[in-house]
Amino acid sequence: MDNPVLVEVTRGDQVESTHRGAVAISDAQGNVLFALGDVETPVYPRSASKPIQALPLVESGAADAMGIDEAEIALACASHSGEPMHTSRVAAWLQRLGLAEGDLACGPHPVRYAPVWEDMIRRGEKPTRIHNNCSGKHAGFLTVAHHWGVATAGYERIDHPVQQAVAKALAELAGLSQPLPWAIDGCAAPNFAIPLSAFARALARLASPKTLTPERASAARRIVKAMTARPELVAGTGRVCTTLMRAGGGRVAVKTGAEATYAAIVPGHGLGIAIKIDDGGGRAAETTIAYLLARMGLLDPDTVHDIVNPPVLNTREARVGERRPATTLLDAPLPDLSGRAAAQ
Amino acid sequence: MDNPVLVEVTRGDQVESTHRGAVAISDAQGNVLFALGDVETPVYPRSASKPIQALPLVESGAADAMGIDEAEIALACASHSGEPMHTSRVAAWLQRLGLAEGDLACGPHPVRYAPVWEDMIRRGEKPTRIHNNCSGKHAGFLTVAHHWGVATAGYERIDHPVQQAVAKALAELAGLSQPLPWAIDGCAAPNFAIPLSAFARALARLASPKTLTPERASAARRIVKAMTARPELVAGTGRVCTTLMRAGGGRVAVKTGAEATYAAIVPGHGLGIAIKIDDGGGRAAETTIAYLLARMGLLDPDTVHDIVNPPVLNTREARVGERRPATTLLDAPLPDLSGRAAAQ
Repeated sequence: MDNPVLVEVTRGDQVESTHRGAVAISDAQGNVLFALGDVETPVYPRSASKPIQALPLVESGAADAMGIDEAEIALACASHSGEPMHTSRVAAWLQRLGLAEGDLACGPHPVRYAPVWEDMIRRGEKPTRIHNNCSGKHAGFLTVAHHWGVATAGYERIDHPVQQAVAKALAELAGLSQPLPWAIDGCAAPNFAIPLSAFARALARLASPKTLTPERASAARRIVKAMTARPELVAGTGRVCTTLMRAGGGRVAVKTGAEATYAAIVPGHGLGIAIKIDDGGGRAAETTIAYLLARMGLLDPDTVHDIVNPPVLNTREARVGERRPATTLLDAPLPDLSGRAAAQ
Repeated sequence: MDNPVLVEVTRGDQVESTHRGAVAISDAQGNVLFALGDVETPVYPRSASKPIQALPLVESGAADAMGIDEAEIALACASHSGEPMHTSRVAAWLQRLGLAEGDLACGPHPVRYAPVWEDMIRRGEKPTRIHNNCSGKHAGFLTVAHHWGVATAGYERIDHPVQQAVAKALAELAGLSQPLPWAIDGCAAPNFAIPLSAFARALARLASPKTLTPERASAARRIVKAMTARPELVAGTGRVCTTLMRAGGGRVAVKTGAEATYAAIVPGHGLGIAIKIDDGGGRAAETTIAYLLARMGLLDPDTVHDIVNPPVLNTREARVGERRPATTLLDAPLPDLSGRAAAQ
């Protein structure tokens, strides 16, 4: 099935580029309340699955045993920008475990936040594994291995108990049987492919934890609260995830992933939202998630206007076009959550 | 009409992202020898139209009058990387015209070639308009205005004689009537929207200049020769356009454009090739043009393998997937030009 066009990019009075994709909104029972496109073929949620990849850290008791605080839980769910608020916390966390940068399985990559990157260039510094946007997730994995007394080396391998715990949590939340298909993510950890409808269901179960065991319910609440309480740690200065969570004022936790995925957890309504843009164009995933959340009344439309409908600027800073939701989204019969009392 | 998937990006054994698009291959008579997808709706060729935007510079006599050499003609067709070989030549060219950086209508943007950009950061330098990847095109526009004795200020406006000359050349080559629809490009100059079939025809007429007036035919030959003789000036170190033209050994001139367009001029066979990827994903345009040229026997497949079919690497440099032409391209009944003698 061909996915519909969700986002258009114009130049002058003409559409220049289009992005197709799929959206699923589910409740915790697995009822798909809204769908666009193919929500049944497995896709890799990539970093949008980090809130679920963080579950073993909390539900295993590792977080409590190791004194992991709210900021560190937010970092375990983060694709961070490599700012000092991120890297200093990950470094201190590793040190508390008696581990170091070299114990992280993720490789280095350039720092996303330009002022920090430019400072590093001026000082002749190279990025380390702690600068990897996934370093908090990996610190979380290491914490679980340490807590369980299993080898920390190899924690990123599919057959390691930590990754098996992630797979089990994801499959149970999504209502899928194991083994899930998987591949290797940019950070060297496994990423499990699941249908968008099942991913939305898994997110909804984090939003509506009364359907879960007490340990998992408590872990889900802590993870969602950490993300919404510390949105600057989940992404960074000027990033879309951070802006959306601030605009939501605690009503929604969001997480982006590579190749244009997005996840949203709506605790007050027990809903999960999952997005994948076919072509991996992140700009379209950003417009789609911001539009959906604003239309559903979960955040202030004015605050997110420049994510939903930003201008296309030329190098003289003149407006020469715009990015905008396509008709498929504009006409979508979305649930209106603005007037509904929190159901959970 | 829905364009077909041209390029896939895999992770593990599964397709993670797909890119749709359209391709037209035409001869100078406007016969579309091969087409995929919608080649009749106007698209913005963006910088892929630079070889045509450079025509007035040469056919007006401005290039000869001002002593414009082959390197400068290549720069007039360039989206350059801001390396010293590019910026020093544009600066000297402007100086010869009695003009300066401030006369360029394009704005500054970060330099694409990382070693130069990092040097600028270390020295605390800001990019200038000369660093704009289009600065050679703009120097060409200024040269024409200077030669004609018209105002150089405002040369980027749609009603300026230079832009009208560009529009006329493009419409004549493409076989379209004026006025052409247009919008403002990233560099503040107009960009004209034309169907891919007409764009391919225009490129074919540059490849087969015997169909043109003597002035235009001579200009077309000089432009194509300059691009293929100085491919490092048309793009830069490590860039795809540069690599493809080197691999072609003079058999093909290529030019990329923003939002995933590509143009190819095949002088030995009098053909033009035009590509637009729907979603603006440049990686897919690169795979498509490299695959088409290699399949048609116009360049060495081994040299371009890592453009046609590059690995997807993670941050540990491990291969976790690949980018590849989709079945639509693999099964395409393309003309085989490897054994044919040059027809022009």
